[in-house]
Amino acid sequence: MKVSAFAPASVGNLTCGFDLLGMALNEPGDLVSVDFNDYNEVKIVDIIGDGGKLSRNADKNTTTIPIKLMLKKLNLEKGIDVLLDKRMPLGSGMGSSAASAVAGAMAANELLGNPFTKQELIPFILEGEAFASGSVHGDNAIPCLLGGIVLILDYEPLRMVELPVPENLYYSLVHPNLKVLTKEAREILPKQFSMKTTIQQMGLLSGFVAGLYENNTDLISKSLKDLLAEPYRKNLITGFDKVYNSAISTGALNCGISGSGPSVYALSTSAQTAEKVAKTMLHTFNTLNIEGEMYYGKINTEGAKITFPS
Amino acid sequence: MKVSAFAPASVGNLTCGFDLLGMALNEPGDLVSVDFNDYNEVKIVDIIGDGGKLSRNADKNTTTIPIKLMLKKLNLEKGIDVLLDKRMPLGSGMGSSAASAVAGAMAANELLGNPFTKQELIPFILEGEAFASGSVHGDNAIPCLLGGIVLILDYEPLRMVELPVPENLYYSLVHPNLKVLTKEAREILPKQFSMKTTIQQMGLLSGFVAGLYENNTDLISKSLKDLLAEPYRKNLITGFDKVYNSAISTGALNCGISGSGPSVYALSTSAQTAEKVAKTMLHTFNTLNIEGEMYYGKINTEGAKITFPS
Repeated sequence: MKVSAFAPASVGNLTCGFDLLGMALNEPGDLVSVDFNDYNEVKIVDIIGDGGKLSRNADKNTTTIPIKLMLKKLNLEKGIDVLLDKRMPLGSGMGSSAASAVAGAMAANELLGNPFTKQELIPFILEGEAFASGSVHGDNAIPCLLGGIVLILDYEPLRMVELPVPENLYYSLVHPNLKVLTKEAREILPKQFSMKTTIQQMGLLSGFVAGLYENNTDLISKSLKDLLAEPYRKNLITGFDKVYNSAISTGALNCGISGSGPSVYALSTSAQTAEKVAKTMLHTFNTLNIEGEMYYGKINTEGAKITFPS
Repeated sequence: MKVSAFAPASVGNLTCGFDLLGMALNEPGDLVSVDFNDYNEVKIVDIIGDGGKLSRNADKNTTTIPIKLMLKKLNLEKGIDVLLDKRMPLGSGMGSSAASAVAGAMAANELLGNPFTKQELIPFILEGEAFASGSVHGDNAIPCLLGGIVLILDYEPLRMVELPVPENLYYSLVHPNLKVLTKEAREILPKQFSMKTTIQQMGLLSGFVAGLYENNTDLISKSLKDLLAEPYRKNLITGFDKVYNSAISTGALNCGISGSGPSVYALSTSAQTAEKVAKTMLHTFNTLNIEGEMYYGKINTEGAKITFPS
């Protein structure tokens, strides 16, 4: 293959910004490799690491839908072979389908000589992800592509703010081997909220945004609360309260559900604490006989990138 | 009188931040003058400009309640004479009772040799204002005291962020001679909001906060919308839609209800536009046979101040 691109996992919602906020991690992530072929068709030649669960049909896979849309936009009748190395679990709440869409678009764009900027790739990627989730949500795909913490304000037209990321902010994430269906995670949510809850959540999100600009750790920590989804969704994640408490008592700024779960993430102010918090969270799941994987590191401010040619 | 303090009018809610945001104006405002007396009592010697509507009882007036609480906190048995020059209309949605409480606390603090910092005056002031409104709301009193645009996150304990104010931000405000009762303005509001509305309003407020930090006029303009109160409260203000449209077509960034109304304010990026917008808004009310007063100027970033001795 001629070009490979890596796109990272991401934490949607980021606790206080339901459907509005997302943050990029350094790992795990997806690797997509592409090359031209001779038969004028976008083709998935193989998918590794998905346990055979994803469609090999290029019209029904989030990796290839953006690529087909890009070629159409460019009026190009090129064929592209696509190899997806799925290096992260499906349905984990870590933006797995977003990572595939982003890595596919990034790799194809490089192969084609970069006809689009990163920002210009967004509409193609969102359409690819909409295929997977049934509706347009950019809170995984956009931070996955651009890196950092992104506040998404509107889709038509797309308006967003790339928020400042404090130098000393580290994530921990544990993916427990539990099944949470996005559909169920949506259906469990209340349809309506009281004036008080609405105002409180507005204060939490705007306080978090101000906390990032002010680099105010206390304000960031106190703002990472969710009254809209977490009180309901946590019941779908066995042991959530115990994991939450273990993260806080290990020194995390705060802890919450990543996207619609079951992954649980935390933020800390040092690499050492982030490592300890990840280990503690995984250990807490383990004591409940739940296996899982853990990740920790600095917030990814670079986003998706070309890994070959390097 | 030995000491005088001025406290400005303020715009509560600031459209996108219901109960959370407030902004200080330069005028109008209240002037409170104080001096020691010989009879160990806080006494209202006179109130000018209220048309006899406010209580002269020091236990029942928002100007004097904070002063009495300050003396109690200091264990001082001093008597203080208080003169309130009410230079702004009552029940106007411009934070009239907050201005009285702030000016009273500022003047008394100066008279007493500044035992409290401005920030330390806040609890006394909020208790004074709670007497007037029946509950603690700092979105007028705190910007009135400190100046600028303030995001209030919590009351117990008080947590807030003094947001950056772009250099080129100007207000226009028109107070139409209409009666809107705060109680009615509260009762007209929905009790519940849909998930979609809740998320949209979270995006608007957080976008506004980011817009101030980024000094992004377009983001500020697009974020000044309210889905929680304005769609209902505007029906209590005759001609609101016409006034709104006249402000926008005169070049305002946006326009909305000040507090619970009936005053209507707008923001602009130049002094000239702010003046034109104020005149246009007042003219529009006038064409509907509604008289009123207009104000315009730079956002007040200084807050309440001692005016005598100067």
